[in-house]
Amino acid sequence: MSDRKEFRDLTEPAQAHEAIASLDLAADPETVPLEEARGRILAERVDADLDVPGFDRASMDGYAVRASDTFGADEADPAVLDLAGAVHAGSEPDVFVAEGECAEISTGAVMPDGADAVVMVERTDEAAGEDEAIEIRTSVAPGDHVMPAGADIAAGQRALGPGTELTPREIGLLSALGRAEVEVRGQPTVGIVSTGDELVRPGGDLNSDAGQIYDVNSYTIASGVEEVGGEAELYPHAGDDMAAMEEALTTAAEECDLVLSSGSTSASAVDVVYQVIEDRGELLLHGVSVKPGKPMLVGRLEDSAYVGLPGYPVSALTIFRTFVAPAIRRAAGVPEPRTATVEGTLATEERYSEGRTRLMPVGLVENEAGETLVYPVDKGSGATTSLVEADGVVEVDADTEYLAEGEHVRVTLFSPSVRTPAVLAFGEDDPAFSRLLDRLGSSRFLPVGSREGLRRLRDGLPDAAVVAGPVRREVEAVELGAWEREWGLIVPEGNPAGIDGFGTLVDGDLRFVNLDTATGLRASADAELERLAAARDADAADLQAAIDGYEFTLKAHESPTRRVLAGDAEADTGLGLRATAEKLGLGFVPVDTQTVRVRANPARVGKQGVEDLKAALSGVDEVLAELPGFTAAE
Amino acid sequence: MSDRKEFRDLTEPAQAHEAIASLDLAADPETVPLEEARGRILAERVDADLDVPGFDRASMDGYAVRASDTFGADEADPAVLDLAGAVHAGSEPDVFVAEGECAEISTGAVMPDGADAVVMVERTDEAAGEDEAIEIRTSVAPGDHVMPAGADIAAGQRALGPGTELTPREIGLLSALGRAEVEVRGQPTVGIVSTGDELVRPGGDLNSDAGQIYDVNSYTIASGVEEVGGEAELYPHAGDDMAAMEEALTTAAEECDLVLSSGSTSASAVDVVYQVIEDRGELLLHGVSVKPGKPMLVGRLEDSAYVGLPGYPVSALTIFRTFVAPAIRRAAGVPEPRTATVEGTLATEERYSEGRTRLMPVGLVENEAGETLVYPVDKGSGATTSLVEADGVVEVDADTEYLAEGEHVRVTLFSPSVRTPAVLAFGEDDPAFSRLLDRLGSSRFLPVGSREGLRRLRDGLPDAAVVAGPVRREVEAVELGAWEREWGLIVPEGNPAGIDGFGTLVDGDLRFVNLDTATGLRASADAELERLAAARDADAADLQAAIDGYEFTLKAHESPTRRVLAGDAEADTGLGLRATAEKLGLGFVPVDTQTVRVRANPARVGKQGVEDLKAALSGVDEVLAELPGFTAAE
Repeated sequence: MSDRKEFRDLTEPAQAHEAIASLDLAADPETVPLEEARGRILAERVDADLDVPGFDRASMDGYAVRASDTFGADEADPAVLDLAGAVHAGSEPDVFVAEGECAEISTGAVMPDGADAVVMVERTDEAAGEDEAIEIRTSVAPGDHVMPAGADIAAGQRALGPGTELTPREIGLLSALGRAEVEVRGQPTVGIVSTGDELVRPGGDLNSDAGQIYDVNSYTIASGVEEVGGEAELYPHAGDDMAAMEEALTTAAEECDLVLSSGSTSASAVDVVYQVIEDRGELLLHGVSVKPGKPMLVGRLEDSAYVGLPGYPVSALTIFRTFVAPAIRRAAGVPEPRTATVEGTLATEERYSEGRTRLMPVGLVENEAGETLVYPVDKGSGATTSLVEADGVVEVDADTEYLAEGEHVRVTLFSPSVRTPAVLAFGEDDPAFSRLLDRLGSSRFLPVGSREGLRRLRDGLPDAAVVAGPVRREVEAVELGAWEREWGLIVPEGNPAGIDGFGTLVDGDLRFVNLDTATGLRASADAELERLAAARDADAADLQAAIDGYEFTLKAHESPTRRVLAGDAEADTGLGLRATAEKLGLGFVPVDTQTVRVRANPARVGKQGVEDLKAALSGVDEVLAELPGFTAAE
Repeated sequence: MSDRKEFRDLTEPAQAHEAIASLDLAADPETVPLEEARGRILAERVDADLDVPGFDRASMDGYAVRASDTFGADEADPAVLDLAGAVHAGSEPDVFVAEGECAEISTGAVMPDGADAVVMVERTDEAAGEDEAIEIRTSVAPGDHVMPAGADIAAGQRALGPGTELTPREIGLLSALGRAEVEVRGQPTVGIVSTGDELVRPGGDLNSDAGQIYDVNSYTIASGVEEVGGEAELYPHAGDDMAAMEEALTTAAEECDLVLSSGSTSASAVDVVYQVIEDRGELLLHGVSVKPGKPMLVGRLEDSAYVGLPGYPVSALTIFRTFVAPAIRRAAGVPEPRTATVEGTLATEERYSEGRTRLMPVGLVENEAGETLVYPVDKGSGATTSLVEADGVVEVDADTEYLAEGEHVRVTLFSPSVRTPAVLAFGEDDPAFSRLLDRLGSSRFLPVGSREGLRRLRDGLPDAAVVAGPVRREVEAVELGAWEREWGLIVPEGNPAGIDGFGTLVDGDLRFVNLDTATGLRASADAELERLAAARDADAADLQAAIDGYEFTLKAHESPTRRVLAGDAEADTGLGLRATAEKLGLGFVPVDTQTVRVRANPARVGKQGVEDLKAALSGVDEVLAELPGFTAAE
């Protein structure tokens, strides 16, 4: 299908790092106003060009004196000095302090000539009976409560070095030096060219029948670029034909320090990009011996650097974080954040033997002791939800075929801002539980269905499982909360087919849309058919077979309802909840209620996130009141 | 000096936190484009309103088939299917796959009707001798290499919860859902009103004679506000009179969720602010029992919240970080960064007994084992350089009077971006060393002079000390590098007074500007006078006394030179380096050379920062070549 050369010997990851390091991404330094300098990296060394303070400065409210006039003074025997005047902060002293005199002075004011120390106001009094005389009840030494000019920083001293990240405190020092602007490292501009005829910008109209999807990588990678100190520029998607792609790529190359192409998984789009780089630039490497990342390209395009990222979102972000982000950071002078990696132990064993380095997407969960457990997330690399179900990647050596449970691993997070979720739950996707999650600060719920949720709970991975309907095998768990929900058959408004239960489906020729066997709703539907079979003295399997579409299943609990809503010819009715039917304005034929239980991992009940979940569950009644067909558990 | 009420019972820190928490700082949610959403906090829960993918999607390049047509096929006995057409990503299939047929399909393309699986291209061949027929060398099951519609995320499923920080991966998921904009938590607007007649904005002209200084707090606190998720607005400094201050404060209160006043250390300015809050708002507390922070105010001003910060920069930033930042973060929904605190052990014992909570500014250094050592930084709270010489604060309980060396402490960093310097050195401020520091990524040098540098090295705190001139007491250390520098007397250009050494100063009535006894230059000058005394058979102390100004000392090595440069009437000549004289275009009367040595803490020679310093020192010759009077050590 492709005319491009095959690079049979894939490059090792270290060589890919080297190839990218050989590209020049650096931008010129720029001058920014102090107000916009936070987070930027100083390009220049900054020396003080003035003394701070610029004058001998009183550091107390009190009286400026000649220290020698106070020698021997104490509470019992104060010195009495004539008040010669006053000096306030921000004004030039118009007083000279002669022997036997003092001047009122406020913190921050210029020391008047003649005076060499300040007596704090608490150690003074207006002398009784005498106007304009002050009692000094302590002795001071020359320099007491005076900050001499240049004592903070003196003209000519090095204040900040190049490469310093400007945080509030550095901004403070630059302010003290009077710097209204500062020269900082330039941010490399990174042009992102999305490839793939099927891509539509978010906000645009999507034609799913024509296989269109929203462009995920451009936005993900653009924000990744900005996170590591680059400036991202999105180049309009231009179609996969050679001329359009060449135009987009070369325009980006002219305007940017680095061009990233990303978006398409289709070989033909990748071929076109490959051809443009070959024609208009230089290809340094094609294909890296890592999973994912085989399709990675590195090269030069006109005067710009170029990297081609894989098409799947998790792969694109992984390759970006692993290979490209460090290069952008280096060019921007930005250090790797300390939170970019976390250490943890594997929660499950993991086998792998493809003979190339693996960048394994993983999720994180904390045990009760606060230790980080790491588990592989593998929904297939095409899933965008893997982006938020995984927290980062573990790099596994090409020759490591087995990782034991409990093995120590280092996780490179997708972003330094990624945090381990406070609570991790698996199980049945339930509208009430989902609303309760909104009340938690940080949580992760994977809607894998009741059965899989229980299995994962048995393995000890999640903090909790959400389980609905009949359960085959018991699991040791602590119940945190429970409620009832009404389920049945979703029908068009007015129930035109006159469905009154599964019996109608068994006997008629209506098309039914079912849910996956992993779900608790399906388990209840199966149980209902068994009851119906018993009542009819028939075999449940035969009844199932008699329902057109019983084996046609969807995973998400609203999906059958939405097929009915869409007026799908193959969806006269579907399995679902009363709450969903009412939300979407459809008819509902009730069948039964089932119990939803939130069950905690016994080893995690003391964990803060589980406590928070329990607290949220104590307010479930409010949530149930908003959901038709939901009631408190009996 | 003040008419304000005295709050004799200072509020405890916990009550101050409560008072600030009782203020409402929250801003309304706002809608931002996806491109600007990174780092923002989701205000809404986001449910998928479409299936992703929106169609059954091929996840491999290959051929769409009916799985049943491939049953039994293998390498030895391939199935041969007629090629019915092709489907590409981004286009609507115009082919139906009937029994015995297949269609070429690319990754991401819509599955054509009739087909239920994809055979990857590597397992196929064009059938020999037959046009339009494909050999299928493997059997597939229904669904193989097909991602069903909604398998990634289905319409109605919860995608992201409120309170989620938007990092690149969440941006990716929002893109997949087609969201071009997103509702995020509003950023509280924080108005910063600087107080104090003496303050000048950075970039403005400074009149030091009138006691003016640059406004440090406004910029420091503004960047602190933005760091924690607020939006800062600086209000022009308006002078300390009641009307101007009232105008500035009430304008800020009308426009902002929170008003901070900050800047002045003078009691009169603080009094005016106090009066405005009393008149136009409500004072909740005045004075907190922490050091620093006694002058802190908390209250309401019109409809806005109000906090008054202390005047000194380190105090202002400390109080902001401790009391105000958490409230802004809560209002913005931004979690405390994980790097906001570090754990360490005290490097020196510390005594304190003021009976109130102390927020002790500290610096950080790592030992060879990578453990964090914490040492108090106390240059006096008026010093802006403390901002960059300290890394954060340790909160010490009011009733803790003694902290032992080795005590475990938690440091709240001034900013989550603050990092422990890679190398910490104390000692003589030397132009060659200072240029070498520019070549290190991260370093801290405290110009405390040779003597103090050696003392700290003896105590084991810094990684290295820079020592110049004669040394009284030896210290165990590893020499990393050394060079010579020429020193002498700085004179105006052309040496109008005809100075030819200290003898001229002893014999004449010229005014001399000396350096502090902590410096190596001063130590060499003292030694030179002893030599002169010996030659004249006189007493060195008498010679010193004969030099007008010998006891008038400055701390920074360029300061005497700059006094001469300024044409100061009291500075006919000063102690300094040839390099400084030439840099500033002054005359120089050479006296001698002295050796500068960089000496490492023997316990830290294996530390990376010290290795880096050593590597930088190996390139010192380049630096010496640029500095007049600097030469390699003999």
